[in-house]
Amino acid sequence: MGKHKDDCTCKHDHKHDHKHGECCGKHEHEHKHGDGECCCHGHEEGHVCQAPQRAEEFRALQRELWTRSYLLKITEFDGATVAPENAAPARGEAMAALAGEHHQILTSERAQKLVHKLNKALSKGKLDDAQLADEVRVFERDQREAMAFPQEEVEAWSRLTCEADAVWHKAKLANDWDSFEPYIDRMVDALKRQAGYLDSSRDPYDVWLDQYERGMDAASYDKFFSQVRETVVPLVRDIAERGEQPQADFLTARVPESVQRNLSFDLMKLVGLDMASTTLAFTEHPFSEGFSVGDARVATHIYEDNLMSNVYSVIHEAGHAIYELGVDPAYAFTCLEGGTSMGIHESQSRFFENTVGRSRAFMGPLLALLRKHAPEVYNNVDEDALYRAVNIAQPSLIRTEADELTYPLHIMIRYEIERMLFSGEATAKDVPALWAQKTKQYLGLDVPTHTEGALQDTHWSGGAFGYFPSYALGSAYDAQYVPAMRAAGIDLEGACASGDLAPVRTWLGDNIWRFGRGKDAPELIAGSCGAPFDATFFCDYLSTKFRDLYKL
Amino acid sequence: MGKHKDDCTCKHDHKHDHKHGECCGKHEHEHKHGDGECCCHGHEEGHVCQAPQRAEEFRALQRELWTRSYLLKITEFDGATVAPENAAPARGEAMAALAGEHHQILTSERAQKLVHKLNKALSKGKLDDAQLADEVRVFERDQREAMAFPQEEVEAWSRLTCEADAVWHKAKLANDWDSFEPYIDRMVDALKRQAGYLDSSRDPYDVWLDQYERGMDAASYDKFFSQVRETVVPLVRDIAERGEQPQADFLTARVPESVQRNLSFDLMKLVGLDMASTTLAFTEHPFSEGFSVGDARVATHIYEDNLMSNVYSVIHEAGHAIYELGVDPAYAFTCLEGGTSMGIHESQSRFFENTVGRSRAFMGPLLALLRKHAPEVYNNVDEDALYRAVNIAQPSLIRTEADELTYPLHIMIRYEIERMLFSGEATAKDVPALWAQKTKQYLGLDVPTHTEGALQDTHWSGGAFGYFPSYALGSAYDAQYVPAMRAAGIDLEGACASGDLAPVRTWLGDNIWRFGRGKDAPELIAGSCGAPFDATFFCDYLSTKFRDLYKL
Repeated sequence: MGKHKDDCTCKHDHKHDHKHGECCGKHEHEHKHGDGECCCHGHEEGHVCQAPQRAEEFRALQRELWTRSYLLKITEFDGATVAPENAAPARGEAMAALAGEHHQILTSERAQKLVHKLNKALSKGKLDDAQLADEVRVFERDQREAMAFPQEEVEAWSRLTCEADAVWHKAKLANDWDSFEPYIDRMVDALKRQAGYLDSSRDPYDVWLDQYERGMDAASYDKFFSQVRETVVPLVRDIAERGEQPQADFLTARVPESVQRNLSFDLMKLVGLDMASTTLAFTEHPFSEGFSVGDARVATHIYEDNLMSNVYSVIHEAGHAIYELGVDPAYAFTCLEGGTSMGIHESQSRFFENTVGRSRAFMGPLLALLRKHAPEVYNNVDEDALYRAVNIAQPSLIRTEADELTYPLHIMIRYEIERMLFSGEATAKDVPALWAQKTKQYLGLDVPTHTEGALQDTHWSGGAFGYFPSYALGSAYDAQYVPAMRAAGIDLEGACASGDLAPVRTWLGDNIWRFGRGKDAPELIAGSCGAPFDATFFCDYLSTKFRDLYKL
Repeated sequence: MGKHKDDCTCKHDHKHDHKHGECCGKHEHEHKHGDGECCCHGHEEGHVCQAPQRAEEFRALQRELWTRSYLLKITEFDGATVAPENAAPARGEAMAALAGEHHQILTSERAQKLVHKLNKALSKGKLDDAQLADEVRVFERDQREAMAFPQEEVEAWSRLTCEADAVWHKAKLANDWDSFEPYIDRMVDALKRQAGYLDSSRDPYDVWLDQYERGMDAASYDKFFSQVRETVVPLVRDIAERGEQPQADFLTARVPESVQRNLSFDLMKLVGLDMASTTLAFTEHPFSEGFSVGDARVATHIYEDNLMSNVYSVIHEAGHAIYELGVDPAYAFTCLEGGTSMGIHESQSRFFENTVGRSRAFMGPLLALLRKHAPEVYNNVDEDALYRAVNIAQPSLIRTEADELTYPLHIMIRYEIERMLFSGEATAKDVPALWAQKTKQYLGLDVPTHTEGALQDTHWSGGAFGYFPSYALGSAYDAQYVPAMRAAGIDLEGACASGDLAPVRTWLGDNIWRFGRGKDAPELIAGSCGAPFDATFFCDYLSTKFRDLYKL
């Protein structure tokens, strides 16, 4: 603790000690109340505490950032759904400007000072506002991470991933691993260096795993995937050897686009989306986007000979959208708006898609809708046949086409390879052989081409290492929600069978949605399930469901 | 001409005289080359002229403005076409922020200084760039007009028009003139005061007429409408008394939405829109919007029992879009992008809608498309019957539903009333009686309700006085383009009959589109038609066409 400097002209009756430089080791005009720290501590009458004003400034700053995020999303949505082909250059220009402004505002000196002063005001109890404290905490983390890298690192990384992405697009088409291979090692090297800027005390791969899903690291994923491996690999083998696949020709029956459109709206309503807060758009790859309180949308792709692709895309994306719409409206225009993480987001979409949407109980309401819109196909299908058909488990090469059971194995292959690349146990040249070996081991399949192997996904070409594992968490979280929901007295099967999912939405809303970005995944899991994440629930769920389906 | 101040430390060998304060009556550091004016005039070796750098800064500044305009349009389009109902508050927030930033950037001290310095550099010949000169000229006018009003005037006006608009919405529904009446006088008073800020040397109504269509004033509109009155009023009377209306039941035949959608795309292609640069959206009130070079879109509304409403909406809006797409690509991201005025824009949309789209020659290609998409309705309709049907002229009360012949009379009623309000010959309380009297005189109709009378349009409630007259100019310009096009060797009838409108597009592109905002309407008319605007062409066109149609 220091003393005021001799040249301090501060006229306040300071009752608190402070270090030099913190309050009074500054210019005279800062003593004359431009400064939140000096206030509320027994000043003369007439002084006004600056902390509430700073909180307002902070909200205004967040609004500036929110505007950029919102516009980025609107523009991206426009591009993905309706914009003409030749609109791309102008859109790119506008989006680059928005992203630049977002970074500039987030990392500005003004923003840094504000966060610093608000942190002090909060810690000194001058602001008693739990939401504001959450905003400051989340904002500060966003800011710190946005500022972590030196400019030359950012630029070099942008060049490297642009180049890698362009090479990957061609390489995938040409089944040409060799041209893409060098980028893997270069990107892993860069990511290891970058991890040091984010947190030099941790293993680099742990840093990146945590970036994509807070609280996760290689140790927790190792444990998770080892349980998945022990449960799912033998189950998949048993199905291949002894399981009987159902006849389900109706899955490929032609259902016209206009019929599928109308069915899609009914599915969105069945999930419980407020139709005044959403819309259905059409695009190449289905997605969902939350724009703001009161606006989260679904985009699907219709194949006339694959109705179920659209059905489960719509239910899945509706699950994402309903999460975004369930965030506390008080978080509007702040950094707490939106979903908290990839894993939690996927747990919401997959809860509706799989836990509800592929449950036996839900076949009643689902079949009723299918019969309403496509009676010529579904009047001859019963609930049991539908249940078997939408739960066919069968190893395949392409991750995005995998079923509920084999999906985590695809993720495991990628996780194990990433882990070896970061630990130095493997380099890029080993990837194709590792891919082939693990695909054989876990899925029982040969990999005929790189296009269907290590070149199939876009993630690595964009430098997203550590991202894949979070994809497997969604369903695993779901399996842990179920007993917690039951313990809260919710009749999940009854809700699914009746088609009235309100009790399910209430539980998810109270335990997950409303917190927005205010809580990280581990807190949400612990809060909602009363215990830390545990993959046992997931393994038990898969085992029970698929052994029953395939009578094993 | 002055001398350098005594304290001038400038080391340059200035060969030019200049006034004190202009170059050297400033701080020392400005002499050391932060200043475009001091350059290119015999400096020592190593000095670099700053003018090109300022031109770059100016382009960057325009890009910042362009980004805001683009995002405003994208967001507005999203709102008008696909956004859910509850998206409105967030969209409003984002749009208000964008509009505020646009105003702030346009009127910033930085922008003012830049324009000032570029003007000097241009006038001194240091920059030889005709496009840049146009940009500076148009930008400066935008800036001057954005800064014309004191802040309190802007705020009071915003409050007044918001209130007026809310009252008007209710008043129109309730046929309640009295509640809206006071706003008319208050707005006219405010607009007269505001006109003084824009140009105190001119009559206030002239100032506003010029704002909506550069170069126009009450004298020119008086002349225009007096010609229209002399030609159209007797013609409409003759049709009512002696003209026979055709049988055209097919106009109300039901054509399903999906069929009308497909037809719409064919119509856009027929007009000549590049389908990679446009899209068709669906909305309440048809509109078109140019977003950027390579992106101008059409939005229509489909009524299943009124195919022609959609057909002519699409052709009309496609005309607007093709104009925007025809602007010189070198104008991208500058203030010269986009159409130059309401009147010129309407002249493009109406050229395709009426001059081409309702011509006898065009009935061939149009009927072919109608038969392709709705054969059950149009196989029994011939070209003559179609031509008569799409050219039915019949007085009606509602402007937006008026036909080609009676439309300008609706505008004339509004113009004459606005003129009297601004001159003081009438006040708001006189408006209903004036409306009734003029509607009887020009259209031969009684006005049963204010809802179908002076309350029908939204323009006045938003304070847009002086805007209506520009609506009548579009078709009048068109009539003057036609002989100019013919003089240039273009076979307009041949192009319409063949459905290949390329020659028409070439002429419009060369004479109108490419100039974007770089030329005002009078310059474009003089340049394309070789003479100033002259309504005689329009009156002759209407007279010939409708006397022939109705055999008068």
